[in-house]
Amino acid sequence: MSLRIEPARPEDCAAILRLIRALADYERLAHLVVVDEDALRRELFGERPLVEALLAWEGGVAVGFALYFHNFSTFLGRRGLYLEDLFVVPEARGRGHGKALIRALAQRAVARGCGRFEWAVLDWNQPAIDFYRALGADVMPDWRVCRVSGAALARLGAP
Amino acid sequence: MSLRIEPARPEDCAAILRLIRALADYERLAHLVVVDEDALRRELFGERPLVEALLAWEGGVAVGFALYFHNFSTFLGRRGLYLEDLFVVPEARGRGHGKALIRALAQRAVARGCGRFEWAVLDWNQPAIDFYRALGADVMPDWRVCRVSGAALARLGAP
Repeated sequence: MSLRIEPARPEDCAAILRLIRALADYERLAHLVVVDEDALRRELFGERPLVEALLAWEGGVAVGFALYFHNFSTFLGRRGLYLEDLFVVPEARGRGHGKALIRALAQRAVARGCGRFEWAVLDWNQPAIDFYRALGADVMPDWRVCRVSGAALARLGAP
Repeated sequence: MSLRIEPARPEDCAAILRLIRALADYERLAHLVVVDEDALRRELFGERPLVEALLAWEGGVAVGFALYFHNFSTFLGRRGLYLEDLFVVPEARGRGHGKALIRALAQRAVARGCGRFEWAVLDWNQPAIDFYRALGADVMPDWRVCRVSGAALARLGAP
């Protein structure tokens, strides 16, 4: 069966949405998913898209995706590439899709002159941490993400 | 003295560079700074800028800055606002510049329909963590940043 990685096209938004929902089910976070096909089409293929996606295909079936955007290092004065989500459906694992997606992103990072390629991992997900380290990633021990959202964001952002 | 927060203009790039260098000195990371004024002008004010900045002014002196860009939540299908760097020169602290910069960013996040406003903090920087929590931020305990850069990125991104 032919395995391949391709940049997402506008007509792939339904497949991407299906994969996002499969990721959320896998993480038992389906109740948090409010994205729809229109939002994906707007953010990935609208007038000034910030977000891009790759799909992993087995024949005619999209079995995995990577969604990414550019971040920025102040000290380097250069863009980086940030991988927001990577997912391969359980029934297609073990055939190299995850690694192929990550390599394809690293190639884009290099081609675009990015200083860094980054993503986040849960600190208890040791198999993922081992996999990423084997690819050459440093897992930085001391940074924590601060997040303001919902009512707290409305309060903080009140005029 | 008049304190104010203003979006950075192209003519402010020298002041932003000075503040980035002051931040690096403060963190004892000056040896990592390779950004120059041209790179800032290109990334902040070029044809398709991804990055934006605010400056904190005391009279005619820029005493602080915040550099930010948009990230993206797959589950929400919405942009977020990500604060990459925030710095106020030591001699101008205690007069509310940091909080004013963060509030100005939260206002932009709300006005732009962002689902989240996020940034990173070092886990040993308890004064900063306390300050951010008081503003309504959650400090997420279990996410770690993975980074590939330099020779490891060149290897991973080799064709």
